Amino acid sequence: MAHRFRASVPLTDNWEHFAFAVADGVATVTLDRPEKLNPLTFESYADLRDLVLQLPYRDDVRVLVIRGEGKAFCAGGDVNEIIGELIRMRPHDLIGFTRMTGDLIRAMREVPVPIIAGIQGIAAGAGSVIALASDFRVCARSARFAFLFTKVGLSGGDMGAAYLLPRAVGAGRATQLLMLGDTIDADTADRYGLVSRLVDDDGLDDAVAELAARLASGPTLAYAQTKALITRELDMPLGAAMELDAMTQALLMTTDDHAEFHAAFNARRPPNWTGR
Amino acid sequence: MAHRFRASVPLTDNWEHFAFAVADGVATVTLDRPEKLNPLTFESYADLRDLVLQLPYRDDVRVLVIRGEGKAFCAGGDVNEIIGELIRMRPHDLIGFTRMTGDLIRAMREVPVPIIAGIQGIAAGAGSVIALASDFRVCARSARFAFLFTKVGLSGGDMGAAYLLPRAVGAGRATQLLMLGDTIDADTADRYGLVSRLVDDDGLDDAVAELAARLASGPTLAYAQTKALITRELDMPLGAAMELDAMTQALLMTTDDHAEFHAAFNARRPPNWTGR
Amino acid sequence: MAHRFRASVPLTDNWEHFAFAVADGVATVTLDRPEKLNPLTFESYADLRDLVLQLPYRDDVRVLVIRGEGKAFCAGGDVNEIIGELIRMRPHDLIGFTRMTGDLIRAMREVPVPIIAGIQGIAAGAGSVIALASDFRVCARSARFAFLFTKVGLSGGDMGAAYLLPRAVGAGRATQLLMLGDTIDADTADRYGLVSRLVDDDGLDDAVAELAARLASGPTLAYAQTKALITRELDMPLGAAMELDAMTQALLMTTDDHAEFHAAFNARRPPNWTGR
Repeated sequence: MAHRFRASVPLTDNWEHFAFAVADGVATVTLDRPEKLNPLTFESYADLRDLVLQLPYRDDVRVLVIRGEGKAFCAGGDVNEIIGELIRMRPHDLIGFTRMTGDLIRAMREVPVPIIAGIQGIAAGAGSVIALASDFRVCARSARFAFLFTKVGLSGGDMGAAYLLPRAVGAGRATQLLMLGDTIDADTADRYGLVSRLVDDDGLDDAVAELAARLASGPTLAYAQTKALITRELDMPLGAAMELDAMTQALLMTTDDHAEFHAAFNARRPPNWTGR
Repeated sequence: MAHRFRASVPLTDNWEHFAFAVADGVATVTLDRPEKLNPLTFESYADLRDLVLQLPYRDDVRVLVIRGEGKAFCAGGDVNEIIGELIRMRPHDLIGFTRMTGDLIRAMREVPVPIIAGIQGIAAGAGSVIALASDFRVCARSARFAFLFTKVGLSGGDMGAAYLLPRAVGAGRATQLLMLGDTIDADTADRYGLVSRLVDDDGLDDAVAELAARLASGPTLAYAQTKALITRELDMPLGAAMELDAMTQALLMTTDDHAEFHAAFNARRPPNWTGR
Repeated sequence: MAHRFRASVPLTDNWEHFAFAVADGVATVTLDRPEKLNPLTFESYADLRDLVLQLPYRDDVRVLVIRGEGKAFCAGGDVNEIIGELIRMRPHDLIGFTRMTGDLIRAMREVPVPIIAGIQGIAAGAGSVIALASDFRVCARSARFAFLFTKVGLSGGDMGAAYLLPRAVGAGRATQLLMLGDTIDADTADRYGLVSRLVDDDGLDDAVAELAARLASGPTLAYAQTKALITRELDMPLGAAMELDAMTQALLMTTDDHAEFHAAFNARRPPNWTGR
């Protein structure tokens, strides 16, 4: 079934700068330059941004998984492919670059599709912010996070990290992580509240697949609106947030999925969710 | 002594949809349908809302305790008494319902009276949000929390949960709890920052009574303004919050209770607080 | 090298109400009335406020350390020197006092210089808020925090605590600490996210010195902007925060320090940061 509000711009599955696959409602992006720990490039940032912005207009994607091939999740921007270029750029292009990377993170937070980061090994720099902007961080014990921006002479508030991290782990721990740029291991990240589920490395793919399947087969409109409310209400005062909740919930009370829950409950069977 | 600014609307202690008692400045609401795990109904939501809104105009209540009879705190809205009705309602009534439930939570946050939830067993759905909106959650080891709204096909952001929970436990853990709707036990809730005090089940009533007595006998205006500032400053920028603190504190420095602290300190005796 | 934008007001190192020293880019304030647990006075508040406000216009200070002499960090305002005076004051002077104390905390958050509190023993009242408003809290195992304002009959939201503490430890734990005013030990503070680094008491001075030296010798503009972004983005919505990040980072990409990172990386040597 084609999306009701798709316009002229064609969709694509032909992303050149990472591996991409869709199956059973789950889109999977695999950063696939493991020999360099899956660095981001100008091109892969742009592709990620466009992919996330297209998700609401695809009918076949209900969950996005972002993962890395090999030993790492993502080591961030490559030092020579990105930084080497940036130090020669003038303001027009620098702003173009920093807006693009921010647009990716903003799209990840605003897209009404749950995003799961499956993380083994290092998530550094832009890789750590992509993990942070995901809704779920399923982490192997080898996972490590490094918001290392000050170590390259830049602000720790890259791509929204100074907005997102204090709201995830509190202002004190965020200051420590963003100002110093040190690496933390999976146990520390878990204690700080950054880990959605912690598993052995050889169980990571299964844990990600299990969560993705659960989200893809569930009441997807309910999930989408939950994400939208969490994202929006971080920026809203109490009274306005209450009103948004009231309107959203009144609308969802008219959905097929809500009625389906009630029918299934009384028939003592599992609900068949349609996301409508 | 009658309240200085009470108007024509009469107060009542005659709440039909839960047990209610006032003693020594502590009002206690007991949800009392233990055979159904103390579900909320249209009527009990409305009564709770009205009770909380009346509290500032009562002279005999300095603390509110909310508890459940039997094995549970509150299992949320009853599936057939509430959901069975909602799926037949049209927008006018749906909005009336979702606004009412939000008005209860908003009143709990805005009323300048400390609220203690005493929690054993399950706090689910609306029960989990009522616990979340309380100032203190005294929990027995049997306590469990389930923000289970997506499991009934609705948004996890019910009654302000998408506003309140990220501010209590951080955005990552809030996403996990609200999107998936899974149940967490008391130890997990404690680790996340949801538990004010954790006690054995047979010590719950005493722990709640002890905290309630402490709050009722303390400097109640200081407590009330502390709650008001925490509630309001979540929605205020730094500079405005500083100004609100400065004005509030200058005012409280003129109170009898502040002078009483100083007199008691120098006389090496405990202060006799009056809340004035 | 004189500061480019210094105006007519002279700088001073002659602070009368605490010990002050500057060495290797690190300014150290030592509260030095150990026999009374380093209480604050009207004069020391005012001196601290003025010192922090001057920091951006000094060329020799890249980090501020605040510490206490003897067994305590700071026991807050002295009961008789401060409270004894306040209870006799009229509104004009009360507001003058509460605005001054708030101005100190606001300046600590807004000054683009990292602040380290080195904490042993009690940090109480205003002392706990000064610790909270610092960027880093290096704590000895003897450290204790007491936001004890309600115990003197005042609001727990003193000097911005009702703004800062929920954003550091979550709203539930902040309510507990600010409403009740009880003392927590270093382990509890660490679990809540208030401790940047926990060390044995006899290692405190070394740990503070090590962190201060690291911050003073690092990319100071990157550190300054990281602090500025964390402070400002607590008050900004997602989209605006992204734009601030993008502009800041584009600007920092043109700095000598960013180019120096790249040169050092390729030369396999440590960077020589200049903060330019």
